[in-house]
Parts: sequence; structure tokens; C-alpha cells
Amino acid sequence: MDEIFTHIEAHADECLARLKRACAQPSVSAQGEGLAEMADLAAGMLRDVGFSVELVPTDGAPVVLGRMTGRGRRTLLLYNHYDVQPVDPLDEWTTPPFEPHVREGKFYARGAADNKGAIVSRACALEAYLAHRDALPVNIVWVIEGEEEIGSPHLAQFVAQYADLLRGAYGCVWEAGGKNARDRYEIALGCKGLLYVELRTRGAARDLHSALAAAVESPAWRLVWALDTLKDPDERVLIPGFYDDVRPISPAQRRALTEWDYPEEETRALYGIVNFLGGLSGERLKEHLIFGPTCNIDGIHAGYTGPGSKTVLPCEAYAKVDFRLVPDQDPARIAALLRAHLDAQGFDDVEVIAREGEPPSAGDPAHPFVQTAARTAERVYGHRPALIPMMSGTGPVHLLCGQFGVPMVTAGVGYAGSRGHAPDEHIRIADFIAGTQYIAALLEELSI
Amino acid sequence: MDEIFTHIEAHADECLARLKRACAQPSVSAQGEGLAEMADLAAGMLRDVGFSVELVPTDGAPVVLGRMTGRGRRTLLLYNHYDVQPVDPLDEWTTPPFEPHVREGKFYARGAADNKGAIVSRACALEAYLAHRDALPVNIVWVIEGEEEIGSPHLAQFVAQYADLLRGAYGCVWEAGGKNARDRYEIALGCKGLLYVELRTRGAARDLHSALAAAVESPAWRLVWALDTLKDPDERVLIPGFYDDVRPISPAQRRALTEWDYPEEETRALYGIVNFLGGLSGERLKEHLIFGPTCNIDGIHAGYTGPGSKTVLPCEAYAKVDFRLVPDQDPARIAALLRAHLDAQGFDDVEVIAREGEPPSAGDPAHPFVQTAARTAERVYGHRPALIPMMSGTGPVHLLCGQFGVPMVTAGVGYAGSRGHAPDEHIRIADFIAGTQYIAALLEELSI
Repeated sequence: MDEIFTHIEAHADECLARLKRACAQPSVSAQGEGLAEMADLAAGMLRDVGFSVELVPTDGAPVVLGRMTGRGRRTLLLYNHYDVQPVDPLDEWTTPPFEPHVREGKFYARGAADNKGAIVSRACALEAYLAHRDALPVNIVWVIEGEEEIGSPHLAQFVAQYADLLRGAYGCVWEAGGKNARDRYEIALGCKGLLYVELRTRGAARDLHSALAAAVESPAWRLVWALDTLKDPDERVLIPGFYDDVRPISPAQRRALTEWDYPEEETRALYGIVNFLGGLSGERLKEHLIFGPTCNIDGIHAGYTGPGSKTVLPCEAYAKVDFRLVPDQDPARIAALLRAHLDAQGFDDVEVIAREGEPPSAGDPAHPFVQTAARTAERVYGHRPALIPMMSGTGPVHLLCGQFGVPMVTAGVGYAGSRGHAPDEHIRIADFIAGTQYIAALLEELSI
Repeated sequence: MDEIFTHIEAHADECLARLKRACAQPSVSAQGEGLAEMADLAAGMLRDVGFSVELVPTDGAPVVLGRMTGRGRRTLLLYNHYDVQPVDPLDEWTTPPFEPHVREGKFYARGAADNKGAIVSRACALEAYLAHRDALPVNIVWVIEGEEEIGSPHLAQFVAQYADLLRGAYGCVWEAGGKNARDRYEIALGCKGLLYVELRTRGAARDLHSALAAAVESPAWRLVWALDTLKDPDERVLIPGFYDDVRPISPAQRRALTEWDYPEEETRALYGIVNFLGGLSGERLKEHLIFGPTCNIDGIHAGYTGPGSKTVLPCEAYAKVDFRLVPDQDPARIAALLRAHLDAQGFDDVEVIAREGEPPSAGDPAHPFVQTAARTAERVYGHRPALIPMMSGTGPVHLLCGQFGVPMVTAGVGYAGSRGHAPDEHIRIADFIAGTQYIAALLEELSI
């Protein structure tokens, strides 16, 4: 194994150059920017490593499907996405998001952590492995989609077509993950679900002088009042039935949660907050973070928001709201409950546009594949990793793995300070190299 | 008088050319754009008509002060402002806001109605009057400030210096006003007051992945919850003490209100609304419009508000809120009540920035100067105008007139469809000419 690890270190610059090319290509799914170009780039990268590659069309961005045959009967699934989050607020980036820069051992670019870094790292790991071994120990099916950041709206089309490929997989190495704020490696075994909605209110035909607020209804106020009925200041979601389907935490999950040494102080410092939400800490904080469903305002807008003052009665208002869901909450059912709740509260004038929905999927820390991944991490990182039954973020785990009973483990190259989804997204180059070694080591473990 | 009216009609094109020059000069006080240039332009216009003009400096934009001596002992005050509202949303303008266009008898530009149209109209009226009479029947003091749209923050400096000029005035012709949605001329006798505040909340040091909503407080939610405590869906302001100083409507004011034939149907059609606020109509609607204080959200912003979806926990949120006040509500006292209320409700984390305050001032429909103005309107427009004790908008009436006991009447060239403060602001050229004749006729009435 040492010769493979050394190979990876010796070829780090080539891998970073590859990452630079990948990150220089914009691929913002929310804005439909550069997706076809990025799919081609990813496909080319997989072909260079020896994959047979198809670009599977969907009604949205194409899915890159790579296949490579190995010695054994087992199939390992790899999942990544080649799209990235929008870059705004653009003026808060130190260097432009699509012009990768290396500063003080860190690689800065949109997508560096989430998750082009992981794509390139995996390609480099496979290349290094094959430079020193005759063949892969397992078959590999690599799925790289282009719409993860907008909720994978067309991935089901791919899954319907290739269900047989997915169904029999031994396990899946998921995107995301890496090191926590105490620099300990963490492996997540599932994802929260998501319901993303837009709430819209409308008033007069156009913006009016705010003096008319005495006689004309305000869509901004309607929106505020409607939002207020969704959650109270104690963070309790007020939609009747919202918590009905929440499944109790299993004993194995509870044990994994207890064993998880969550770096509270470092995380608070990192985010620049004095306290966690509602003063949470310890077991209750971890439980809320991993098993607590949320209702978050991603954005809200009405009227004049520029400098100085303008007295205007806005003619429309909207809010983008996401609900993170836990097993067995169903996004379609939550959307229906939301609509019914608004109607019951007298807000039938509030339009609800349900933009995305993904079911949640939590994992079993005791599964053999999970234990193999944990053993590998211990070997590469020098400590036993935390096993987190479900990450607080969302991805199509249920669609690709959960529904087929395939266990998953995350493997990423980011760390707690990576600023995913935010300005100055970056990875540490040392993490990038170690993450590459981890994938190679996992292959070796699977060959045993 | 006929020869003066004919003169005004014959010189309409020259006056419109003058208006075009005035509206082509941006002068957005909220953004500090073009104010000095516009002050010079206005001063030049007054000099052309025969005024002796001073540009009175303040800590903000200069005040244009014009003086002309007439035959009589009475002094008539004219008040206007040369600044305009911001132009956004820019993409909703049919033609650019600072490139005046005439279409179908209408003159489009930012400031056409509010209120460069009135400034030019007055200049043209005085010019026409002096072309056919030896001298003005009254002395005129013309005050044109440059910060009305941001609440006249420095006008008090001018007033302190020239209080003696203002104190003895017989009456004041105010800016604003014109025809209602039934094309009837209306005269307002005062203004509501204003308190304009910005509410700000802050969370983490930067925007975070929205998955962290399970553990990190959201400034967007804090803002929504804080706003919700300010007003309930029945439009009742919930700040304790808010209504304490509201003075009862006088019998003369009540009579004027009853006589006012408010064009409900036309106004609803104009604004594109099905019903007035809370289903109000008749006397209650008029009372609310004129004597009801308001609490309006001018703008609200947090997080991602672009196309598609982005899952983000915003690190800050803000709302711009205006309160329209009625006698004897005091903006400073309301600001203090707001702060105390938020603190009492547990929102001491919500920052309140009080941007502007102006006291309200309501007028007496029975005052002789008001009756003169009404008689003049009847002569020019062919019908008895409504006398509205207080307009629902705001201006520094108290500062310039109310505190000195000087009565005021509005005289403008706009109409209900003028889209003041909004895209496609415009006036009808016929109204512009009639408004010019009205000023000339008022001078004639004052000579008797």
C-alpha cells in the first residue's frame, strides 16, 4: 500500500492541475450555467482513468455514468455531482469563484469542497491504484449527476433506467464529508430529506406610494404573517402533522451519536456564533443537528432594499424556505400539510411553489461496509472516525441507495472551514491528498 | 384673466421643453445623485422668471430660496422639492427614467409628477402673469429643497435661519396633489408625519449551508418574528402606546371628509386591487386613508433571492419600515416606544436604526386662505374641489408651516394614475397646462 500512497503524494501537482481545470469550468445548476461543458469535462476525466463512460441524457443535465470491471464479484458505487452552488454574494470572494487560487496550502474555488475536489481525488486514487495493481478488486459504477444542488430533479429518470446496476451494489461511497472542526475525520451514513418551497404573495398591480398602506393590502405583511405561523421562536414547526412521521432513533444510532465527539467550541468559533440555537449543547445539540427536522428561510425579498430610504408599498413579496426532513417524513406529504396549514390560518392568498423534494435516509453504523470504511479511515487518518447516521445536509441517498437497501458512507476532501455554499469555498491541499489515499486504501480493504 | 390663460396655452411647448430639461437631470436624494446640479438648474429657472435667488447651504443638499416683491403686503409661500425617488425597479420603465418621453398626451420621466412638473408649472404661471400685469399682487417666497424624498433631514437648518421669512406668510402653496381617480381636483391641507426605520438582525459571521439551521440561529427568522409583533393581520399596530396621542377628528375636518366623494371603484381599478384593505369602504375607508396611522414594510431582504433555489442560512437580514403618523403622534416618541416594545418582546437583538422623523400636520378646511384656493380651483377646473384635511403622504408641513400657524394648500399637476415613486411616473400634459393656469388664477384671486 505504501507505494500507492507515495505515488499519490508524488503526483499531487498533476491532480491539483486537474482540479484547477474542473473548478475553472462554471457549472451552476440553479442558473443552468455550463452544465453540458462540465459533463464533458468530467466524462473525459473518467475516460482518462480507464472508465467506459456514457453521458446519460435526462430532461435536465446529463448524468455521467462510468463503469470499470474489477477482479471480484462485488460492485462498489461511487456518487458525486459536477454542479455547484450559485456564487453570490460575489463581492465577498477574495479571488473570483471560477479562477482557482492556491494560498497558504489551500485551494480556493467554487466547487473545491462541494464537490469537484472529491471527483478529482477519486479519479487520482483509481489511477494510482491501477499504476501498482493489475486490476481493481471490485467492479465500479460511478454516477456523477449535474443537478444535486437543485435537489436532483431528474436523477430519478437515470435511476429508473439503470436500477439493476444500482440494486446489487455492495456499498456506495457518497460525496461530501471530511474533517470536523477538531480536525477529526467523520463518516456520514445518510442524508436528511428536503422540501424546498417558494412562498409568494401579491398585492396591487404595481408598487405604490407607501402612503397608500392605509388603504391597500401589503403582500410584504401577508408574507411575514404567513411565515410567522410556520415556526415559533422556540424553533417548533407549527404545521399540524409535521412531526407525525418522525421515527425514533435506533439504539445503534444513539450509540454512534453518543460516541461522536462533536467539537462544539471549535464549531462556534468557526461560524462566529456565541451560542448554538436555543443554547443547545451536548447530546441534545447532536441529536438536534442529526435527527432534528428544520424549517429555514433561505431568502426573503420585497420592495426597496437598496441604500437609504424609499417609501414604497411593494406589489409582491416572496420567501424561499427549506425544510430538512428526517425518516420517515415525506416531502410530498409535508408540502400538502403546509398548504393545508396556510389555508386553515387564512393564508389561502399565499402561493406555495414546491420546487424540490427528497426523502430522508439514515444509515446503520453496524453494517459491515460501514465498518470497513471506518477501519480504512483509522488506517489513513490515525484515529477512529465518528459514524454519523445521517448528515444534516441533503442528497439523493434514498433515491440512489436507500430504496435499494445499499449502505453508503461519505468520503470527501473538505473540512469544517471549507465554506461550502458560501464565498471563499476551499479545501486544504493536505486533506485533498489524504482523501485520495483514503479511496485507494478503501479499494485495498475491499480486496481482502 | 383670459389673456393670461391663453398665454399659458400658447407657450405650453416652451414650458414642456423646460420640464424636459429639469427631468433629464437626475437628482436622487436617497443616493446623493445630481443634487448640486439640479439645485443650480432650479435656481436658474427662478432667476429667468425674475426671482432674486439664493442657494442656501445645509449639511445636506442646498435649499433654493427665491424672493420676488409684489404690490401687496401679503406674502405667499411656495414650497417644492427638486429631488426625486430612486428609479428601481429600472426594468419596469417603458422608457428610461431620466430620458423624458411624450406618449399619447403624457409626459413620462422620474419627477414628472413628484414634483418637477409643479416647479416648472409655477415658474411658467408667474412668467405668464407678469407678461400681462405690472407686478405680482403679493410678495412671493419660494422654497425648493433637495431632500424631501428622504424626509427633509436638513430643512430645519434652513428654517432656523429664515424663520422670520416664513412666520408671517399668509398661506403656502404646497407641492403634490392634483386630480383623483374620478378626475376631480383635490386640495390637501396637511400631511401625515413619518417615522422611517431600518430593523437589522445578524447571525453567524457569514452565510452558512442551510443544513446548519438545525444548530445556528437564523437572523431571517428573528426578523420575521420581530416584525410580526409590530402589527397584526387586522392592521392594528401592537406597539404599546402607539395610539395614545392620536387627536380626535374636528367637526370641520369630519364635514370635509364626508363631502369628499372618494372614487373607490376607479381607485381600485387603477391600483389593480379587488378590495381595499380589510374590505374598508365609504366613511371608514376615507377616515382610515386620511386619519389612520400606518406601519408599512417598504422593503425586506435576507439570503438568496435570485432565480432557482439555493440552500443557505443567511447571516443577516433587514427590513425598512415606515410609520405614517397623525396629529399628535411624535416620531421620536414612536421610535422610543418601538425600541421598548422590541426589548419587552425579547427582541433586544434587533437593531433599530431610526432614519427619518417628521411630525404630522392637519389643516382647517374653513380657513379663508383655504377657501380662496378652493374658489380658484372651482374657476379653473369647473367643479368645487374636495378639501382633504391631511394627505396620506408626508412632507415637512409642520416644519415649514404648521409650527408658524401658516395654512397650506396643495397644488400639483399629477393625477391618480401618475405612478409617483414607481416606474413610468408621468403627468398628463392637459393637467400640466391647467395646473399652470390654476397658479396664475390663484395670484389673481389674492390680488382682490
